[in-house]
Amino acid sequence: MSEAADTLRALAATLEQRKGADPDTSYVARLHHKGLDAILKKVGEEATEAVVAAKGGDREQIVYETADLWFHTLVMLSASDVPVDAVLAELERRAGRSGIEEKAARGE
Amino acid sequence: MSEAADTLRALAATLEQRKGADPDTSYVARLHHKGLDAILKKVGEEATEAVVAAKGGDREQIVYETADLWFHTLVMLSASDVPVDAVLAELERRAGRSGIEEKAARGE
Amino acid sequence: MSEAADTLRALAATLEQRKGADPDTSYVARLHHKGLDAILKKVGEEATEAVVAAKGGDREQIVYETADLWFHTLVMLSASDVPVDAVLAELERRAGRSGIEEKAARGE
Amino acid sequence: MSEAADTLRALAATLEQRKGADPDTSYVARLHHKGLDAILKKVGEEATEAVVAAKGGDREQIVYETADLWFHTLVMLSASDVPVDAVLAELERRAGRSGIEEKAARGE
Repeated sequence: MSEAADTLRALAATLEQRKGADPDTSYVARLHHKGLDAILKKVGEEATEAVVAAKGGDREQIVYETADLWFHTLVMLSASDVPVDAVLAELERRAGRSGIEEKAARGE
Repeated sequence: MSEAADTLRALAATLEQRKGADPDTSYVARLHHKGLDAILKKVGEEATEAVVAAKGGDREQIVYETADLWFHTLVMLSASDVPVDAVLAELERRAGRSGIEEKAARGE
Repeated sequence: MSEAADTLRALAATLEQRKGADPDTSYVARLHHKGLDAILKKVGEEATEAVVAAKGGDREQIVYETADLWFHTLVMLSASDVPVDAVLAELERRAGRSGIEEKAARGE
Repeated sequence: MSEAADTLRALAATLEQRKGADPDTSYVARLHHKGLDAILKKVGEEATEAVVAAKGGDREQIVYETADLWFHTLVMLSASDVPVDAVLAELERRAGRSGIEEKAARGE
């Protein structure tokens, strides 16, 4: 089985390449061409679609919409020049008991 | 690159274990105890925070809020009994040129 | 000056009429034809756009996107067979000192 | 119909007064004290809750969450120094056939 973080890293690298591609042939280049607000709008839209899918309970739709949300989050990171590794490092920090319980202790 | 390449799967496994933990000591168990709507509310809240961070342009905040969004998306997947591997497989499918261009062809 | 709630009521009445119109000629009828999920997706998308506009600080854009958000919320109410008066009555209940402070007391 | 037809304007005026109140006693003052990002986060959270309520189909919950969304949108307008009348004027502009159809013509 391939490694999860490598899937994200490989996709992030592909998305980074698309950033400067021809907007007429690449969906991702078109998003960047429209600008940050258009990308953020997609993140909000896809988050809502993932939430609606989860509320509906159709697992295939949940998979599809969550992938859409993560995909557009990666485009957002790319537009903000934030490497996906920084987010993965932050998640690793929370993967330990301490990280999760720290949030609990903060009452979040 | 990090030897903990499987950040997402490791975190997903931890979150799955927390599902049945004591709500008094685990933030994640408390979320599940509150129910699906509370989890979905957090996904929407964190998506908004990530968008606001990206619009603000503070890269440290973008990292933190994106991690928060992915974290709660993983909790949502866990609540919906959807394995993170299914989402990663969908993302891998899109990582190829065909996947991204297919979306472009659909005009999305 | 016209009355605010009457603006909403008049618009809600118009939207209710559009519900059954021809999807080929009416944007609202087309939304209903696509179904509830499509309407909810628009609510999430417009909420994000309003948030991004407010973060950006352009007042004209804030007006436009907030109107878009309320517009699609009214379509959502119409799809759910919830009269706008029920929402206005709930807001009136909160307009008094007690309502707002009650929320504060709940720590929200 | 309700004699308090100006629900939204009355609420907006109340919210404007709360802006400078003591954060220890007023929920709205506390939101402003936390800053714009905290207010926008609430808008995103309440939009998600309204969407989840509509997907769930419980009409009482839809009323409550939509009121919550509009309430926090009004706080957002207040924080952005945008008068609610500007949004209502934009909505009135759309209430006519032309406004709605114009959107349809734009393919939105």
